[in-house]
Amino acid sequence: MRTKYNGLMSLVIAGSVAYDGVETPHGKVERMLGGACTYIALAASYFTPTSIVAIVGDDFDQEDVDLLAGRNINLDGLERAPGKTFFWEGVYSADMNDRTTLRTDLNVFADFNPKVPESYRDHPYLLLGNIQPALQRSVRAQMKSARLVGGDTMNYWINDFRAELLETLKEWDFLLINDSEARLLSGESNLRLAARKIVAMGPHTLVVKRGEHGALLFQKDRFFAVPGFLLDQVFDPTGAGDCFAGGFIGYLAQQGIDAASGSIDHNALRRAVIYGSVMGSFCCENFGVERFRTLTRGEIDSRFQEFKGFTEF
Amino acid sequence: MRTKYNGLMSLVIAGSVAYDGVETPHGKVERMLGGACTYIALAASYFTPTSIVAIVGDDFDQEDVDLLAGRNINLDGLERAPGKTFFWEGVYSADMNDRTTLRTDLNVFADFNPKVPESYRDHPYLLLGNIQPALQRSVRAQMKSARLVGGDTMNYWINDFRAELLETLKEWDFLLINDSEARLLSGESNLRLAARKIVAMGPHTLVVKRGEHGALLFQKDRFFAVPGFLLDQVFDPTGAGDCFAGGFIGYLAQQGIDAASGSIDHNALRRAVIYGSVMGSFCCENFGVERFRTLTRGEIDSRFQEFKGFTEF
Repeated sequence: MRTKYNGLMSLVIAGSVAYDGVETPHGKVERMLGGACTYIALAASYFTPTSIVAIVGDDFDQEDVDLLAGRNINLDGLERAPGKTFFWEGVYSADMNDRTTLRTDLNVFADFNPKVPESYRDHPYLLLGNIQPALQRSVRAQMKSARLVGGDTMNYWINDFRAELLETLKEWDFLLINDSEARLLSGESNLRLAARKIVAMGPHTLVVKRGEHGALLFQKDRFFAVPGFLLDQVFDPTGAGDCFAGGFIGYLAQQGIDAASGSIDHNALRRAVIYGSVMGSFCCENFGVERFRTLTRGEIDSRFQEFKGFTEF
Repeated sequence: MRTKYNGLMSLVIAGSVAYDGVETPHGKVERMLGGACTYIALAASYFTPTSIVAIVGDDFDQEDVDLLAGRNINLDGLERAPGKTFFWEGVYSADMNDRTTLRTDLNVFADFNPKVPESYRDHPYLLLGNIQPALQRSVRAQMKSARLVGGDTMNYWINDFRAELLETLKEWDFLLINDSEARLLSGESNLRLAARKIVAMGPHTLVVKRGEHGALLFQKDRFFAVPGFLLDQVFDPTGAGDCFAGGFIGYLAQQGIDAASGSIDHNALRRAVIYGSVMGSFCCENFGVERFRTLTRGEIDSRFQEFKGFTEF
């Protein structure tokens, strides 16, 4: 299947572009391209025209620009500031279900004040990566005509910026978080009860990412669950959740599905969850963004069919 | 749907019948009917004629006999011995994903030497609950005409009775264990690799139970995964894995599917995994075996359809 592009499907992604130092049981990389915005954009770029809003330092490598540009990602909103690019370093546990952050240097990201380029402002799709809720709101406010808006958050914002986050969520169609974040945000340990509370906070759709255990999709009266894709080897899970988000919104954008035209087709959301799962699984097959150097849309669609094959009964 | 019974479908279950003391975040019961054989038999009884091989003490209550007999479970193989019935006591963690054993009194179970009644010996289906592998082998040897044989085991037997367990597994069609047991048995942390090794040990079918995260079905060249059923409240997970086993083998027996007639229909195994998941989910809805006092086959088939509804895309 060949992706057909048109302007109506354009997606804007705001978030972090970073360098990561990562150690997993399979090896160690001192410094590689990373950041939520990077992973989301790379994954979404297989589905729809994608533009980013992010900031990097003057150390940002041309080969990394080239990788993103090579996937036709619009970099008009990639601001360059004097100083160093956001740097994160972490190490994974033996089973890779936990990771410890060793270092977080915000660098130029500390003063990130996202400015959406004029050329993006009429784009209908908006994905807000995991950054401070006030910045997510600011981007949302600059894209008044967005017809489908969603994003990610994390425990730090849920705990310490709760009021700000709740205001932000009111303007979203969907929220993509993991199960511990869903429990923390709702105060409910049972995921079904947690989802009910979160759906009442604003987003009509909640996607709970569970890593190797798959994903759950909740709406007021609808529920969908998919198991995880079992890889022979998980090389590096960094960015898998962000690639899930990119596959999810990318597919919806490609299909031209948005919230402004009334209720969103629930079955399209189910397929978007599968494409999210597919993109997350590919991400884990190599370190960092390496898998995206060779990945093709054909491989993506094959794995979508594989999901059908191992879940049907 | 009404279950049609005939002699060809008869299932024999060997394992523990016990009293349990259980504490969960929802309450505490000092002493209630439990044991793997009990749960497996109760679950299977909704699908097929079921007979048990087990031992209890002279303290075994008539009301518990009545509950089992009331589900048409054949108790000819329920031996009564002087002394007390096997007693287990445990407490669950706040999220109920872990439990701590506070007490295990084997009592009459310490000298259990399972004798399969003559009247059972031509029954085609055999499920061996989690007991010492040598006893599982002994029961298997007494049922030479069994056409589909499988069972459960646990970390204790895998670690300390490994050679005996491996001999036992050679004669099984399927093995039902949880993910940590699959990793321990195979020495592989990756479940796909673990499954390959286990399927080479004898059973052509491996079912990995993952509790709230669902279940996986592995054969040499086939794979199936189902997410867990999300309950509004997990009251008490005790016995859920055994009820899974009961639903799994019970459905296969009801359908007359066995290994002697050549290869087993893979799609029937998928449906059996769903019925296993259904029975495990009902088990968690109340303390101990309480849910089975009211559960109907109609509710079971409705939940099977619910599984279809929330997994299709």
